[in-house]
Amino acid sequence: MDKQVHAIGIDIGGTKINIGVVDEQGVLQDYKQIPTNISKGPCGIEQEIIEQVRLFEHYSIAGIGVGIAGQIDPKSGTILASGNLKWVDVPLQANLSAALKIPVTVTNDVRAATWAEWLYGAGKGSHDLICLFVGTGIGGGIVINGKILNGFSNTAGEVGHMIVQKDGAPCSCGNFGCWEAYASGWGIAHRTRKMLKENPDKESILRDKFKDIQEISAKHLIQAYREGDLFALKVVQETYEWLLIGINTLANALNPEKIVLGGGIISGLPGAIDYIRKELPHKPLTTATKNLKIHPAKHLEDAGMIGAGALALNNFAKLYKPRIS
Amino acid sequence: MDKQVHAIGIDIGGTKINIGVVDEQGVLQDYKQIPTNISKGPCGIEQEIIEQVRLFEHYSIAGIGVGIAGQIDPKSGTILASGNLKWVDVPLQANLSAALKIPVTVTNDVRAATWAEWLYGAGKGSHDLICLFVGTGIGGGIVINGKILNGFSNTAGEVGHMIVQKDGAPCSCGNFGCWEAYASGWGIAHRTRKMLKENPDKESILRDKFKDIQEISAKHLIQAYREGDLFALKVVQETYEWLLIGINTLANALNPEKIVLGGGIISGLPGAIDYIRKELPHKPLTTATKNLKIHPAKHLEDAGMIGAGALALNNFAKLYKPRIS
Repeated sequence: MDKQVHAIGIDIGGTKINIGVVDEQGVLQDYKQIPTNISKGPCGIEQEIIEQVRLFEHYSIAGIGVGIAGQIDPKSGTILASGNLKWVDVPLQANLSAALKIPVTVTNDVRAATWAEWLYGAGKGSHDLICLFVGTGIGGGIVINGKILNGFSNTAGEVGHMIVQKDGAPCSCGNFGCWEAYASGWGIAHRTRKMLKENPDKESILRDKFKDIQEISAKHLIQAYREGDLFALKVVQETYEWLLIGINTLANALNPEKIVLGGGIISGLPGAIDYIRKELPHKPLTTATKNLKIHPAKHLEDAGMIGAGALALNNFAKLYKPRIS
Repeated sequence: MDKQVHAIGIDIGGTKINIGVVDEQGVLQDYKQIPTNISKGPCGIEQEIIEQVRLFEHYSIAGIGVGIAGQIDPKSGTILASGNLKWVDVPLQANLSAALKIPVTVTNDVRAATWAEWLYGAGKGSHDLICLFVGTGIGGGIVINGKILNGFSNTAGEVGHMIVQKDGAPCSCGNFGCWEAYASGWGIAHRTRKMLKENPDKESILRDKFKDIQEISAKHLIQAYREGDLFALKVVQETYEWLLIGINTLANALNPEKIVLGGGIISGLPGAIDYIRKELPHKPLTTATKNLKIHPAKHLEDAGMIGAGALALNNFAKLYKPRIS
């Protein structure tokens, strides 16, 4: 008899969907990736997910966890709005549960990744933890007193929209001076283009490579930095400073034990971790900063999938009854 | 037989000490105020507190709660450092407890005031709450999932030191661009003086009243504003904007149900509450801001005392055994 209980973790992104079988140690036992066919609409995508999940039915599955970017109704698991999928009011939890006859829980993708880091990753064992994912934007998962903070309307952790500059750079959210308008992937790209425009005399390989500087992304900037471009070095240095400011703010406001840093920008600029580890302990209030542990995330692309599975195990493992075989 | 259990709440400030008897409904039953004779040192001040507490021994006292500005060791209740009293390593909890033969708990003054607002004030009934006290500085008390957040090294809630402007105004903490460097009492005074200096052509009654603009405090600015001074009006308007920025940041990061605003600056500028209530719901992320309740604090000068008493009741009321009479 198989005593090990598993969950299915699903990470629905804008370009691909990861579907995996996670065991109670947070280890991925099986895994599929399918493209996100946005043109097929929610019903088509749900159907594709259902087909994939059925391939895993030989495992003892206690439930399914789904992580997805967007605003989710915490009670019903309905996707109220998901920008990159262009979904509005999709009852994903109810639909998957009805089709697969298994309990399903849906959460925000950042919170799913936080579950992975908190239970099985760099945040393991910490009851007061902030996980920061610096990718295209900046998302945060906050663990306080051993619980993930959902917030009153289920939107806690939007730390990318902390204001770090009054009347500052315009943010995608409509506000000005948000942290992610400086330190995220799109913020870095924005600053790079702005600095190139405002300093026409400054040389850079980016200028040679791109006729239209609007095409320059954070990835291009990081590549130029790795090639030793001095202009890119300056942008990177400022990125580190902006990252430090937001982390300093979170340390002072919440006084966590540990901050875990993940996401594409941190993977691309691992020097950010060294910089923050070196500078933060000297920043006031040192009672909050000097002993704050800074760790790189353990999980990369699979964090959302593993975390969604971990959440499902947390919610449903105790309810699991093995089938008579 | 008196079934009502009480606690003594003590608020030790830089100029005065409030000592009161708080009942289980958070009502002050008795009260004394004595000046803080800093020159007498910790032993002298402790002796004066002990004498006052003995005057209340006819009440059924379950324990004593003390609120004090400074850094406190959460286990021992020792004052590690208190700037305005110039105390270092004062074992206040142990000393009071030994002298009075009663359990004593010591907390930060802002967290004590948060207890008062949370249990008996404007934050009553809310499990996800931030209390902001805007006085000389800005302090915050954060309630999450029905618990006051202490933080890993007992310094959570230092929201006055969230950075709202990179390389901004110098803060008393040694950092630059902290929220309280703009929106607190001292921050308002700093901005007032700076604006007067930088705009020598701008008329203001403040210029006429003060030969040395260094003497101008937030109180003077608020007085000038009430007298209809247009320069002061501009400073006040900017203060509202700075307050909004920090509150917007807290809403996005933590998504609380309610924010309670207290302290001398809010009492002096009650229009701040109206401004924030009007502007905040339109600020992104509206999922966090549009339903966030903004309330003025209920308790004023007595919040620290009532809250310290409430904390003592929370910790000790169940341990209380009435004396045989």
